[in-house]
Amino acid sequence: MAQNIYDNLEFHQHFMHLPSQTHGLAGAPEWLLFRSLIPSVINASILDLGCGAGWAKQTKEFPRSAVVVYKQADLETVGLEKEKFNIVLSSLVFHYIVDLPRLLKEIFESLKPGGSLIFSVEHLLYTQATNPAWSKDATALPGDNYFEEGQQTTDWLADGVLKVHRTFGTYANAMMDAGFVFGGVKEWGMEGKEMKDAEQLADRRGRPRFLISKGMKPDS
Amino acid sequence: MAQNIYDNLEFHQHFMHLPSQTHGLAGAPEWLLFRSLIPSVINASILDLGCGAGWAKQTKEFPRSAVVVYKQADLETVGLEKEKFNIVLSSLVFHYIVDLPRLLKEIFESLKPGGSLIFSVEHLLYTQATNPAWSKDATALPGDNYFEEGQQTTDWLADGVLKVHRTFGTYANAMMDAGFVFGGVKEWGMEGKEMKDAEQLADRRGRPRFLISKGMKPDS
Repeated sequence: MAQNIYDNLEFHQHFMHLPSQTHGLAGAPEWLLFRSLIPSVINASILDLGCGAGWAKQTKEFPRSAVVVYKQADLETVGLEKEKFNIVLSSLVFHYIVDLPRLLKEIFESLKPGGSLIFSVEHLLYTQATNPAWSKDATALPGDNYFEEGQQTTDWLADGVLKVHRTFGTYANAMMDAGFVFGGVKEWGMEGKEMKDAEQLADRRGRPRFLISKGMKPDS
Repeated sequence: MAQNIYDNLEFHQHFMHLPSQTHGLAGAPEWLLFRSLIPSVINASILDLGCGAGWAKQTKEFPRSAVVVYKQADLETVGLEKEKFNIVLSSLVFHYIVDLPRLLKEIFESLKPGGSLIFSVEHLLYTQATNPAWSKDATALPGDNYFEEGQQTTDWLADGVLKVHRTFGTYANAMMDAGFVFGGVKEWGMEGKEMKDAEQLADRRGRPRFLISKGMKPDS
């Protein structure tokens, strides 16, 4: 099974104190852009890949509901029911996936014709190998390693977190290769007041932080 | 009329000594990627926006041909014949265009159903405002100005060259807004041997230099 750093207790304890966890969507500043790509959810069957709280055991404490079903699976190998969903969502998960073409194909087949996939990943300007934190070390400027795709180790909340860097072209073409029609892309980075408030954070100075993409399955 | 820096004699004299001009396609290393997006040209009606030699007067010296027609126009305002072309190409021109949505719409309408647009621009990691040359000045790292779109002045072959920076999302969404279906994207930067040979060039060290995009007009 792939590394699931969210099963690491130390990582998870730090993670649960992030604004996105303590404040919900209000603490996820990219949410408005993400939401702008989601079609009407009325009567829609929706699959969310990668649960927000990150820790599968915790779903046992979530409110029970007749309309929400939780499943634990490895996205590197998961099999999804065919033509089942109108909308598939995934927030900041796919940059952990090594075999993204396989997963995208699986998602494409799980969508009903006319269905949509909307997913966010860490922006490719941020995941560039060896330097995800936008170091000011002039020997390793962002851009130097843009074409060095693949898994890299970063220290974020815990040591040894594995993330996958992909170029923009690789993300876009992988969606197309899986059968999706391009449905739009949004890039989020702190701007204006947000940026001013956070200007002490070297990695948030108006740089693109998240890439949010949409793919549509054609009506057959 | 928009600035056409290629009409500037000093700029043009420098430009005509670039490898892409003295060696043709063999001096344009991104050509193989560009070509990979072009569909069959057999019996195709093709429009190339922005002539390679850059200087309209020079087209008078080009070989005459019954099948090649040269026209001089401002791409900011040009009107194209409707449903005329199978393929529209443009190499490293659109980052000079201020009103790109207008031009893309014009191109879309000039294509026959099933036709394709393939165009290259300077990569958005390269055109970022204020720092197109990937300066090693640590106070202005690439990424700092990613969201600052619009015209910027750069000194390249001549002083005061105006180029337009756009984010990836702006390019991709503008194509979609004009009606195009996404048909693939390629990013070119020096790698491997090329990079080694050019390692003295601070702005070519494996960084993405060109973005090549394809849009398709659906069959009606």
